[in-house]
Amino acid sequence: MNQAEITEVRSLGDHVGKSVTILGWVESTRSHGKVGFVIVRDGTGLVQGVLLKAELPEDDWGLLESLTQECSVALTGEVRAEPRAPGGHEIGVTGLELLGASEDYPIQPKEHGVEFLLDHRHLWLRSSLQRAGLRVRHEVQQAIADFFYDRDFVRIDTPILTGSIGESAGTLFEADYFGEPAYLAQTGQLYVETACPAFRKVYCFGPTFRAEKSKTRRHLTEFWMLEPEVAFADSDDNMRLQEDLVCYLVERVLERSAKELEVLERDTADLEAIAAPFARISYTDAVTLLQEKGSEIEWGRDLGAPDEMLLTEQFDRPVFVHDYPKAVKAFYMKENPDDPRTVRCNDLLVREYGELIGGSQREDDLDRLLVRIREEKLPEDVYSWYLDLRRYGTFVHSGFGLGLERTVAWLTGRPHVREMIPYPRLMNRLAP
Amino acid sequence: MNQAEITEVRSLGDHVGKSVTILGWVESTRSHGKVGFVIVRDGTGLVQGVLLKAELPEDDWGLLESLTQECSVALTGEVRAEPRAPGGHEIGVTGLELLGASEDYPIQPKEHGVEFLLDHRHLWLRSSLQRAGLRVRHEVQQAIADFFYDRDFVRIDTPILTGSIGESAGTLFEADYFGEPAYLAQTGQLYVETACPAFRKVYCFGPTFRAEKSKTRRHLTEFWMLEPEVAFADSDDNMRLQEDLVCYLVERVLERSAKELEVLERDTADLEAIAAPFARISYTDAVTLLQEKGSEIEWGRDLGAPDEMLLTEQFDRPVFVHDYPKAVKAFYMKENPDDPRTVRCNDLLVREYGELIGGSQREDDLDRLLVRIREEKLPEDVYSWYLDLRRYGTFVHSGFGLGLERTVAWLTGRPHVREMIPYPRLMNRLAP
Repeated sequence: MNQAEITEVRSLGDHVGKSVTILGWVESTRSHGKVGFVIVRDGTGLVQGVLLKAELPEDDWGLLESLTQECSVALTGEVRAEPRAPGGHEIGVTGLELLGASEDYPIQPKEHGVEFLLDHRHLWLRSSLQRAGLRVRHEVQQAIADFFYDRDFVRIDTPILTGSIGESAGTLFEADYFGEPAYLAQTGQLYVETACPAFRKVYCFGPTFRAEKSKTRRHLTEFWMLEPEVAFADSDDNMRLQEDLVCYLVERVLERSAKELEVLERDTADLEAIAAPFARISYTDAVTLLQEKGSEIEWGRDLGAPDEMLLTEQFDRPVFVHDYPKAVKAFYMKENPDDPRTVRCNDLLVREYGELIGGSQREDDLDRLLVRIREEKLPEDVYSWYLDLRRYGTFVHSGFGLGLERTVAWLTGRPHVREMIPYPRLMNRLAP
Repeated sequence: MNQAEITEVRSLGDHVGKSVTILGWVESTRSHGKVGFVIVRDGTGLVQGVLLKAELPEDDWGLLESLTQECSVALTGEVRAEPRAPGGHEIGVTGLELLGASEDYPIQPKEHGVEFLLDHRHLWLRSSLQRAGLRVRHEVQQAIADFFYDRDFVRIDTPILTGSIGESAGTLFEADYFGEPAYLAQTGQLYVETACPAFRKVYCFGPTFRAEKSKTRRHLTEFWMLEPEVAFADSDDNMRLQEDLVCYLVERVLERSAKELEVLERDTADLEAIAAPFARISYTDAVTLLQEKGSEIEWGRDLGAPDEMLLTEQFDRPVFVHDYPKAVKAFYMKENPDDPRTVRCNDLLVREYGELIGGSQREDDLDRLLVRIREEKLPEDVYSWYLDLRRYGTFVHSGFGLGLERTVAWLTGRPHVREMIPYPRLMNRLAP
């Protein structure tokens, strides 16, 4: 073995002219008689190794010919600046060692069906588009934590296992909790609301579960959701916070994920154009506008995906649709004092992806909330602890939910949310 | 109503001499004939309002007398510096408004039993010790994200719902996944390992589940676990990373959570003394040392909690115990080349709390891993995807698991992990 200092590809620029060892996986090789090339990925970047037959031990040259896709190797040699190479550097190889073989690697440089790729998700993760998408996910996740940390929010982890029944019992997964039924949370909102009197501004951010028999490109059965909640904030404050967050995420990704957006061939002009204030339109005005544009939507019905798409095309930026009919929204939303047929809520819609965020001011009046719970035929005793928030010092408060995978799909311009999570769970998929 | 600019208690220092409005919850009141006091918590801090009967509208003075614990109020008046007041400021009240009543608030300023408090967890969160503990949790959580972000790790969210059976099937919760059995993950490790060839350094950090029929003060059935994994890192590198992380968390909490540690009456001398390098002792030497100190432990048995406690007392800092017998550890740990009876793993033990971290180098040899899977009678086909990591470019790698709640309990010096999570799930508790 002929190892020099082990270095990450990311920091090769600091080692030009020096001999280093790179540990990584072979993406491809080629050779032309007396000169050979190997592209190695080490998880921090790609580097090209250049091998000259005349200058290498015979065994090492022979090894080059036998290297297969995804075998792991140690590559030693001098770092050279080479603007044409991926990453801007190449290595003049003086030593090559096989660490781990790789025979018949399943994912070949050709088109595979998506079911095949999902069956091999643990290997598909190594592919360039998947790496880029998941790196953007990572950046967005940290950006969300930073945004709220810098604004003095307290992170509150809400429970996954719960004995209570949430807003739509039909889409809950049931688990066995020492012989009792438990349900996997499809929202942390009700819990996170209770932390407002302790910390004023809070958020939860974790996995949520929806047992929806849905196979669209926008749905996962397990996904990460951000849910901030702010005491003494009304529906307008809530929309401003959403606007600030979305602008922050866009800027952050443009600034720090430029390389990944390039790999993903994301046209960044759309993203660069995003700025506050976003457009705002009431549900009632949106229905009128949609009807004018040919939709058959009638007042009182929820907006479907085609209506949402049509609506976003009328605006040059993300659009808030606010004050939906009470009947199509959740029981906890604040009745609109100006029009009791509606509630003080909003969806934030973006082009091609539809709803990015759903938010609302919460019903803070105990009696009105009880009426709504009874109207929806929800079990009142199960919500006793939630009602306590209105019994002991009730307060105006608002919050929203943002799905991480859909947000990352939108930011990266990728069609499928299933590629925006390391191990997607779909109606027909629980493995690997 | 007599509102001025709504201000958070946290920033009263910027408003001395000005009139502001504070929105919050009443912690207590008292009055002495012509002067009254009200302590209001607004989620960012506590402030004292001073009311003079002669200078207040009669209704507002009357309101003071009727204010009850946890009612919500708007308090308006001039901000004054007052070093003796909590937070260093008080408000000369010129207006007081009741926002939400609070009759017979269940948690009184007296001792309550823990079951009662857990039944009222949604209100208990408002108490000062609970607020302080959960703020430290928040700080530690952000610190963990920052530590790994700054070191170029990529966050990989591993699935909760899984069809595979993990290391100890007896402690898994089972869920119904569209008619098929699914299990709630008790570790993300196997999944996070697969992301190493994509990103080199990765971590997962999310809820994990253990269906253990355990009622100790150190166990939860649902808790958050951090699991980093590093390609081309061996067991020694792994311990150094753990050391760096723990020192970082200690420094960060000392620096940014000083107020909370004071509320929690944490003696910080212990924490200030923590510095790398930590003590290191092999399992074999630890057994000898424990036997000398009177333990009946024999080589080959796992260390129990009493042995761990006895051992930590022999060192003035956290101690790594490494290279445990293979038979008491998980199947995926790397066989020790120097002594095949043991594996290259470590626990990190701290005084009074025992195991803070468990880590290991992973078995990267396909044949040895298969032998271990068969010895443990695990279903080989279920681990096929995990074995693929050894089939296609295997590599040395290591990682560890750190439980968030236990870490926060240790940092804050609180005995019970159940107070370190907003809504604890225990063997007999799934609500609220």
